[in-house]
Amino acid sequence: MSFNTFGKLFRFTTWGESHGPAIGCIVDGCPPNIPVSEKNIQNDMNRRRPGKSKYTSQRKEADKVEILSGIFEGKTTGTPISIIIYNKDARSRDYETIKNKFRPGHADFSYLIKYGIRDYRGGGRQSARETASRVAAGAIARIVLSKLLGKKYKVIGAVVQLGILGCDKKKWDEKNIRKNPFFCPDKKSIKLWEKYLLSIRKSGSSCGAIIELRARGIPAGLGAPIYSKLDSDLASALMSINAVKAVNIGVGMNSAFLSGEENSDEMMSVKGITKFKSNNAGGILGGISSGQEIIASFAVKPTSSILNSRKTIDKKGNNTKISVKGRHDPCVGIRAVPIGEAMMNCVLLDHYLLNRAQCD
Amino acid sequence: MSFNTFGKLFRFTTWGESHGPAIGCIVDGCPPNIPVSEKNIQNDMNRRRPGKSKYTSQRKEADKVEILSGIFEGKTTGTPISIIIYNKDARSRDYETIKNKFRPGHADFSYLIKYGIRDYRGGGRQSARETASRVAAGAIARIVLSKLLGKKYKVIGAVVQLGILGCDKKKWDEKNIRKNPFFCPDKKSIKLWEKYLLSIRKSGSSCGAIIELRARGIPAGLGAPIYSKLDSDLASALMSINAVKAVNIGVGMNSAFLSGEENSDEMMSVKGITKFKSNNAGGILGGISSGQEIIASFAVKPTSSILNSRKTIDKKGNNTKISVKGRHDPCVGIRAVPIGEAMMNCVLLDHYLLNRAQCD
Amino acid sequence: MSFNTFGKLFRFTTWGESHGPAIGCIVDGCPPNIPVSEKNIQNDMNRRRPGKSKYTSQRKEADKVEILSGIFEGKTTGTPISIIIYNKDARSRDYETIKNKFRPGHADFSYLIKYGIRDYRGGGRQSARETASRVAAGAIARIVLSKLLGKKYKVIGAVVQLGILGCDKKKWDEKNIRKNPFFCPDKKSIKLWEKYLLSIRKSGSSCGAIIELRARGIPAGLGAPIYSKLDSDLASALMSINAVKAVNIGVGMNSAFLSGEENSDEMMSVKGITKFKSNNAGGILGGISSGQEIIASFAVKPTSSILNSRKTIDKKGNNTKISVKGRHDPCVGIRAVPIGEAMMNCVLLDHYLLNRAQCD
Amino acid sequence: MSFNTFGKLFRFTTWGESHGPAIGCIVDGCPPNIPVSEKNIQNDMNRRRPGKSKYTSQRKEADKVEILSGIFEGKTTGTPISIIIYNKDARSRDYETIKNKFRPGHADFSYLIKYGIRDYRGGGRQSARETASRVAAGAIARIVLSKLLGKKYKVIGAVVQLGILGCDKKKWDEKNIRKNPFFCPDKKSIKLWEKYLLSIRKSGSSCGAIIELRARGIPAGLGAPIYSKLDSDLASALMSINAVKAVNIGVGMNSAFLSGEENSDEMMSVKGITKFKSNNAGGILGGISSGQEIIASFAVKPTSSILNSRKTIDKKGNNTKISVKGRHDPCVGIRAVPIGEAMMNCVLLDHYLLNRAQCD
Repeated sequence: MSFNTFGKLFRFTTWGESHGPAIGCIVDGCPPNIPVSEKNIQNDMNRRRPGKSKYTSQRKEADKVEILSGIFEGKTTGTPISIIIYNKDARSRDYETIKNKFRPGHADFSYLIKYGIRDYRGGGRQSARETASRVAAGAIARIVLSKLLGKKYKVIGAVVQLGILGCDKKKWDEKNIRKNPFFCPDKKSIKLWEKYLLSIRKSGSSCGAIIELRARGIPAGLGAPIYSKLDSDLASALMSINAVKAVNIGVGMNSAFLSGEENSDEMMSVKGITKFKSNNAGGILGGISSGQEIIASFAVKPTSSILNSRKTIDKKGNNTKISVKGRHDPCVGIRAVPIGEAMMNCVLLDHYLLNRAQCD
Repeated sequence: MSFNTFGKLFRFTTWGESHGPAIGCIVDGCPPNIPVSEKNIQNDMNRRRPGKSKYTSQRKEADKVEILSGIFEGKTTGTPISIIIYNKDARSRDYETIKNKFRPGHADFSYLIKYGIRDYRGGGRQSARETASRVAAGAIARIVLSKLLGKKYKVIGAVVQLGILGCDKKKWDEKNIRKNPFFCPDKKSIKLWEKYLLSIRKSGSSCGAIIELRARGIPAGLGAPIYSKLDSDLASALMSINAVKAVNIGVGMNSAFLSGEENSDEMMSVKGITKFKSNNAGGILGGISSGQEIIASFAVKPTSSILNSRKTIDKKGNNTKISVKGRHDPCVGIRAVPIGEAMMNCVLLDHYLLNRAQCD
Repeated sequence: MSFNTFGKLFRFTTWGESHGPAIGCIVDGCPPNIPVSEKNIQNDMNRRRPGKSKYTSQRKEADKVEILSGIFEGKTTGTPISIIIYNKDARSRDYETIKNKFRPGHADFSYLIKYGIRDYRGGGRQSARETASRVAAGAIARIVLSKLLGKKYKVIGAVVQLGILGCDKKKWDEKNIRKNPFFCPDKKSIKLWEKYLLSIRKSGSSCGAIIELRARGIPAGLGAPIYSKLDSDLASALMSINAVKAVNIGVGMNSAFLSGEENSDEMMSVKGITKFKSNNAGGILGGISSGQEIIASFAVKPTSSILNSRKTIDKKGNNTKISVKGRHDPCVGIRAVPIGEAMMNCVLLDHYLLNRAQCD
Repeated sequence: MSFNTFGKLFRFTTWGESHGPAIGCIVDGCPPNIPVSEKNIQNDMNRRRPGKSKYTSQRKEADKVEILSGIFEGKTTGTPISIIIYNKDARSRDYETIKNKFRPGHADFSYLIKYGIRDYRGGGRQSARETASRVAAGAIARIVLSKLLGKKYKVIGAVVQLGILGCDKKKWDEKNIRKNPFFCPDKKSIKLWEKYLLSIRKSGSSCGAIIELRARGIPAGLGAPIYSKLDSDLASALMSINAVKAVNIGVGMNSAFLSGEENSDEMMSVKGITKFKSNNAGGILGGISSGQEIIASFAVKPTSSILNSRKTIDKKGNNTKISVKGRHDPCVGIRAVPIGEAMMNCVLLDHYLLNRAQCD
């Protein structure tokens, strides 16, 4: 019910603004006796943090997590885990020139209408900086699920479409994904993407992206029939990420174009094990996991803060123009990969616990 | 938190199986003193009910709503509104032949794994029959919002893609939508759609659809910044509808392919009123309504219960085949239109109340 | 969050007014594969229903439960269980004379101020008739816990104070409690209580009561540290029963008068088993069950609807008097016994499931 | 649903252990544009903090609040307010001697059984230190309610029973309450209380207390009929405070001993204004405020950590004895006064917002 909390049994609440002293989160409902360290969380943080390559924001944030509670002698105690991440490189002066104008495509306008006040510095609460907290919470979910489900469990995401450029998903190479600055799963696309993104940055524009997430090692039976469906919770989770405008489960939008025979995944038994001929459903049937790989994808719109001039209005309602300087990502979709993974990990752990409660 | 409840302040809980004595819902949190009658709700019910045309299921259900509580002398009292809809035309024998086999693409398998038991008759709880309750709840939300927002307020949906056939969305003609059996917004497409759907039914197959929802007269400021975003709640609502595999807000998936300039909706002031040059955002910025029309669309996969034979397994794990007889919709997407409208009405009323609580 | 729902994982939502066609509830989150029948629930209902003796209301209600969903072939399916109880003996005319006056001590006034409308017949939603639904939900919780915890598990309540008359709690005789019309645990007090209550009824007045609940066979570890404490949830559950004005855990109010040595229950190990010298804590330490018997008690105020004349005002604000005729209990506390048991069963099952989710 | 969150619309989540680096809370759902400063919150903190007099714990904590988010240019923005309070005077060595023994009456035992791990230093999460966060959240609720309800609004608590010593509640003198170290409302009792408490401390023992809370200026209509009753939410709130074992609304337990005539508060109209002859109901009828003063009281058990030797067991199940050294309050009930006030402020604001949402 809370405006800033995600999850049912495994829950996290985030707080903080882009240019305040710090941001952070409280993770609640975590099972006890699980080894969790700042170092383990930091690995996930590093995949999201800005300033790592010339293809993302140049804001220099170490995004160093500090655990303030909930861990005792290296293990979770079942009590709330409070995580704080200090803001180190906030340059509020960047925003002075735009504090009275609305950036088209941004939440500036809707926030001010709603609350009658907003912290304009760096987007305040509406900044994607909030997602650092999600990644921290997601890292804890990942650690817990690894303990509960074992080595077969893995969640990994990749950028499968960068603006107008796709990639060959058949060449999905998991080892490669985290080694290139785009989280691109297909080695051969990387060079082209580099050129494309640099040209977009140079031209003062931005581009969108499509991210695909895959979860392996998830048992059948997670989810619920009607309103806590695994897919509706995933949709809510992914749509809550800044700039996301669409969510697909399995073949998603394309399911509309298939026939009943093409779409439904035939089943068979191979040496006593249930197999599916295809996975158009993305591993979810009737809101409940089927035991197949869970596949979800989402579209991220192009960054709204661009250098190129746009028509807009100011707070007083006067017509004007705006050109947004600052250190913005030319494609926010890239850094959405670890955020999407984090949200998926949280949803899966939540449903694991919910299922354990009701159906153990 | 409940598995069968939707909403935060305006909430409804549904119950019932396809072939049980009845289905129904409890609507909680409804403002008092609003005139609500069975007749007003019935109008919405009739748009969803089966057996109306040869293009949908031939199951004959009047879907007559009865109000058991919460209304006194024709008005809401603020206490829970209990609605019951009796099942009249359940033919359980249709399901005897398939009670031990899993229908590919159906929730049969995942339900049984999860619960170890399931009411197989007509899909039991997993049947789309549950959505009748949603339409009843949505009708109440619509009535309340009409009172709160006045005549300018309207939510309407249409099928914009029927299997492989699109329509001309520029010819969106609102008066026509509810007058044809497909909720098609473009008159000229209807004849072709008729032929197409009859041929699909005849061939023992099925097709998918894309539905677009539009909400007018929604004030700016509804929604919340992070996890109760208006768009993430809409995504959750629409993805919870049976057979839905994708949700878009505004241009949705297509936002990935646009440049920052193309995508962000420029703003201007015309005679003191804020206007937007376009509406790619679908009326939602940063999770909060902008005052523009709210636009969401979703993809419905083709009906999984088809006559054509499919490979599957039985409960004992033996390989077998299945051909599903019965009275199934060749395209469940059509009847998803009033369901989508209902969910949107509920989400909007919920956020209206949430906003009134915090920001009045 | 809902106004008419109780519980976290095991949840029930009630609906219905005293003089509407029916009342009922939806039980959600029930584990699957548990044998549940109307007959089993009915046993609990019969303990609460009016008209059984001359010491309670003469309204004749069979309080017959009908299950509309969630049970298949005699077992729970994990989907919502909808229960309906038809109102059979509602005499609305009894209320015509008081429809425009506020009964002192009743919710008439506060409801009308809040909602601006209310169903005055029999108290409408504010009637204790709603508690029949709680007893049905509690019966299901009891059945599930009996399956999960085995024969050692039992919740039983008794009236330990009837108005000004106490009883000897040392003579608590469990077999006797449900065999006398007062749920009195001490045989010797019954005759005196009979005389006392008849004289109160005869004099047109009413009296209060104190009810004590005991739960056996509850494992240590149920509950949570801070805001979902087992005791705070019990307090909320019991205080939500009509006319309840106080809740004690263990020695409750009396703990204020004890010294630290007297109050804290010393621990010892007897043949390897942890024992406590006393149970002032009522089996709950820091919000978590200790493995001892759980003991809670609550005070029920005297029935506000009495024959004796009282000063009051009418809806227009005129001073007047009121004398409430009708078929009211001289002591509503008696029928609160099975309601208290039901609420305790629900809280305990809820925490059993919560604990299984987090700490399994 | 969260284990560490309180509230529905106005919610706070607390975190932190007694001897960790810090404790804190996140306040969510706060209305925007309300002036809130650290200084305003600090006033409330100072009433709870230890080390102020010889009658409470000698642990020296400034309990200085720092606001990390949610306030911009001195005003709330509607986004989460994160508050941190650093622990300054934690002496973990005090606990080395008892880390393997269970303190009778303490949560040591039940926590370890539940989680299989616990931070024993100073009680860890189970320490009453957590309540500092509640006072901070309550201060914000108080500030918001003062803005919404104006000057007539006030919540104040007092110790009305200190162990075996009562006071004369008819001499309730509000100006005096916060000027004496016991929050005693009756000047004449103070000297006796001083002697009594010093003798208890000297003897190595402890005593309990009863605290009464009064809220003025609360409009009629706050609350809800069944499970979000104002009184059941207050009961939950107060019972969640460490060491509380009983909660009364109005005359509470004593209502059991009254007749219907004595108990129900007669109503009358005086110059067009509704008045009540008495306030046995404590300002709440049917779960909804009546416009009268809201009165609740609660009992706090004597501190379990006492110097006097007690029988107990150690973690291995051996019989042993324990004598708890350290800096414990001889009567934790005293510092429970500002905590009770804080919880009441939070419940009232929550219901104010809930009522505004549904019944505006």
